[in-house]
Amino acid sequence: MKTLAELIRWRAAQHPDCIALEYEQRSTTYAELDRRANRVANALIQNGVRPGERVCVLDLGHDHFFETIFGIAKAGAVFTPVNWRLAPTEIAYVIEDARARLLFVGPAFAEAVHTIKERLKSPLTIVCYAASHDVWPTYEAWRDSAVDSDPHSEADEQDAVWQLYTSGTTGNPKGVEITHHNLFSGLASGLLTGVKLTPGDRALVCLPLYHIGGAGYAVNLVYSGMTIVIANLFDPAGVLRLIEERQIKQSFLVPTMLNFLLQDPTCGEVDFGSLETIFYGASPMPTELLERAIDRFDCSFIQAYGLTETTGAVCFLSAEDHAGAGARLRSAGRPAFGVDIRVVDSSGDTCPTGEVGEILIRGGSVMKGYWNQPEASREAVVDGWFHSGDAGYFDTDGYLYIHDRIKDMIVSGAENIYPAEVESVLFKHPAVLDAAVVGVPDERWGEAVKAVVQLRPGSAADEADLIEHCRRHIAAYKCPKSVDFAESLPRNPTGKLLKRELRERYWAGYSRRVN
Amino acid sequence: MKTLAELIRWRAAQHPDCIALEYEQRSTTYAELDRRANRVANALIQNGVRPGERVCVLDLGHDHFFETIFGIAKAGAVFTPVNWRLAPTEIAYVIEDARARLLFVGPAFAEAVHTIKERLKSPLTIVCYAASHDVWPTYEAWRDSAVDSDPHSEADEQDAVWQLYTSGTTGNPKGVEITHHNLFSGLASGLLTGVKLTPGDRALVCLPLYHIGGAGYAVNLVYSGMTIVIANLFDPAGVLRLIEERQIKQSFLVPTMLNFLLQDPTCGEVDFGSLETIFYGASPMPTELLERAIDRFDCSFIQAYGLTETTGAVCFLSAEDHAGAGARLRSAGRPAFGVDIRVVDSSGDTCPTGEVGEILIRGGSVMKGYWNQPEASREAVVDGWFHSGDAGYFDTDGYLYIHDRIKDMIVSGAENIYPAEVESVLFKHPAVLDAAVVGVPDERWGEAVKAVVQLRPGSAADEADLIEHCRRHIAAYKCPKSVDFAESLPRNPTGKLLKRELRERYWAGYSRRVN
Repeated sequence: MKTLAELIRWRAAQHPDCIALEYEQRSTTYAELDRRANRVANALIQNGVRPGERVCVLDLGHDHFFETIFGIAKAGAVFTPVNWRLAPTEIAYVIEDARARLLFVGPAFAEAVHTIKERLKSPLTIVCYAASHDVWPTYEAWRDSAVDSDPHSEADEQDAVWQLYTSGTTGNPKGVEITHHNLFSGLASGLLTGVKLTPGDRALVCLPLYHIGGAGYAVNLVYSGMTIVIANLFDPAGVLRLIEERQIKQSFLVPTMLNFLLQDPTCGEVDFGSLETIFYGASPMPTELLERAIDRFDCSFIQAYGLTETTGAVCFLSAEDHAGAGARLRSAGRPAFGVDIRVVDSSGDTCPTGEVGEILIRGGSVMKGYWNQPEASREAVVDGWFHSGDAGYFDTDGYLYIHDRIKDMIVSGAENIYPAEVESVLFKHPAVLDAAVVGVPDERWGEAVKAVVQLRPGSAADEADLIEHCRRHIAAYKCPKSVDFAESLPRNPTGKLLKRELRERYWAGYSRRVN
Repeated sequence: MKTLAELIRWRAAQHPDCIALEYEQRSTTYAELDRRANRVANALIQNGVRPGERVCVLDLGHDHFFETIFGIAKAGAVFTPVNWRLAPTEIAYVIEDARARLLFVGPAFAEAVHTIKERLKSPLTIVCYAASHDVWPTYEAWRDSAVDSDPHSEADEQDAVWQLYTSGTTGNPKGVEITHHNLFSGLASGLLTGVKLTPGDRALVCLPLYHIGGAGYAVNLVYSGMTIVIANLFDPAGVLRLIEERQIKQSFLVPTMLNFLLQDPTCGEVDFGSLETIFYGASPMPTELLERAIDRFDCSFIQAYGLTETTGAVCFLSAEDHAGAGARLRSAGRPAFGVDIRVVDSSGDTCPTGEVGEILIRGGSVMKGYWNQPEASREAVVDGWFHSGDAGYFDTDGYLYIHDRIKDMIVSGAENIYPAEVESVLFKHPAVLDAAVVGVPDERWGEAVKAVVQLRPGSAADEADLIEHCRRHIAAYKCPKSVDFAESLPRNPTGKLLKRELRERYWAGYSRRVN
């Protein structure tokens, strides 16, 4: 059976002495990771955790976090990480929604958990990753109180093994149920990207482990026996140092991270000779940023397009695709083997080549559904097709271009305007460090195009300059009617622009268009 | 959906201009292969072939054969190759068992088909790969009478797409139903063997395409976009020349083929510099032969153990495993990810480490069943576990050793003797070219161990020499009591010894023990 428990058991048998995890000065072999996962599983079972039960984890990334991920799987339970950026009430929402009875928490979040614990409707057992608390057991002692024999809990490939909450730029987060089959459908496709996967080679995991680009990417690495080097928080100078010191061969980064790395003052001194491949995705990649990154890191780049609901990547822009063509760099690439992608109009008909519509995705990696939300699940997955909410189109060569979230589309007069296209033009202006485009109320057109821009320190540009710049690149109706300047733009930890927050400022007093 | 039709469609989109097939002086790109498969599919549909229908193919390997394999899949039908070593009555048996209404045949077998055609109960449409017949349409004209647009026949991953007849050393051959899911479960595991898979690199396919080691291996190559170089018959000098001339990177060979290559007079002059990996399997590999092959070919060796009923390899002895240890070279390696293997005794209990029992296999690549043989299917696959009929044991490191077919085991007195062990010792003798061990009637012990040996030309050894040689290596009760000498041993085309034929000579007049 292809289960997550079997993966670590099998991998430990194949390469027991190979290093699985490196975190700060600690390292863990695959055999040790497997045995510790057994202890975690046995301790969970002793604590009454039952197969299929959700177990929450709230912390930055570290080696013990990975032991927990595999331990939960070995107990037949469901790994349910909590976004550590959430406010205490939101954390409480996730724990209660998941009906979790046990939570692993890091010392940095102990205070927040302490605040909400009393308010929860059901009792919550807490295990703390450090001895920072006088009541809760400390992880290592708790883990080592259990034996290290494999509990061999039975699991079905169609059972949920992870429940990841959507980063939710709108509304309450929903628990995305990911099965073993979902995980391994995607993994097999990933192996076909032509990247060299050598057991023991080091890869850097710096996305949060509550994100599919963190945990999902890490499972890919375990699948191929690589060594996971963990960065627990994204500190650009620290990550640059790790790449050189640990001889990192590959990593998965989001565009904002790449931008931060390139802007770091130490970036020019770092030797990137070990780097073979950088995967990127999770939010739109400005072409200009990608070109600078390719130039500086001088390695293969592969774009992975996907969503939590598709267990990550379903579409790849290959290293070869990055080599020549300029225009193709704006594409998300082509569907992975076994993934069907359609672009449909509002009546559900397939759009002609080049025409923008909603992206639908079908394949083995499409989630089981949203936890306890049968209605939302039925709306999201129809006849096996996941309705992504992303707008995009195919070109004549079968390359997919992501335009934007359908919900972020601006309707001005009779025209549909996709903010991503306008943002991409703004990024080409030398004075622009960050930019967002939203629709704002307009008496005449319903909505008008508004740009919110963060200027590069030491650069200058005014509203007229930027509008003029846009007019040189795109149709007049798409250009911003007005530009506001900001100190920084609201983004979630994976770099996604929080358009809702931006829109709220302009739509106060209006009854629509905030979500 | 991961289907065989989707594989070639997807691969052609990824690398349209990459060469898919090389056969003699012809070459076919992936885009051409996809379009020709469309034509074959449309022609089949025009001929009334319906989804799920078995379509037979009887020929040596060539590029048109591959177009046929993918064309049948694109029509939603089931590729049912016929072993070309079979006698006309056996060929008729397979065609009738499969209820095939259409047969592709090569000119070399037209005569045989002509003989049986009149005797068949149902009409059979015949398409001939060459213009050797005045009534049957010729393949290329027949194919090109249909359009090259993709018929996009719907298929389910759990549908049968191939029906391979077991090479059947005993009884009537059975049709093994292999689904799309079976094919792709195994393929994902194969990608984890650490072999470099670069689109456009050349691999040699020289096993017959009615064998899982031929067609199944070839699908692996399409999966990774490699170029398949086809040897239609195994001619040692020709294969050696192809390896050097075409710069072959990898191949799948059976032990007998390796032996023939090493014995060929031209072998010493060939430059094997391009070779990276040789996969081998399908029958037991004598250690001595393996060592000579590693020495001469000087590339990575990977053993793949599996059966038609498991869609090929379920166990791999990795390149690393071949590097150091002598004893480990006798092992079939360790289970692939997602494959469960147990060794059980006659009452179905798991055997302790080191103890020989029957090998049971569970996983996504275990066949759907035997076509139209519900009883045989129920006996073969119990609770998802395929009963392989192979005898073997696990060592303490989790390596599987195949001892023999359960049915080939010799019971002499109270002792179980596995012929493969004795044969392996005989192969160590410098005068032995080929050897088989069977049980023969014995008044006192029920069965006695008999060796049948083919001596190396120019070498000499008598019965006493060989028995003495065995006594130095294995327990006395396992040693041959007698040795017969033969000009050659009966083997099937994939190198499997036909023990039944050998035993028949000794058991004439007895009521048991021929099968």
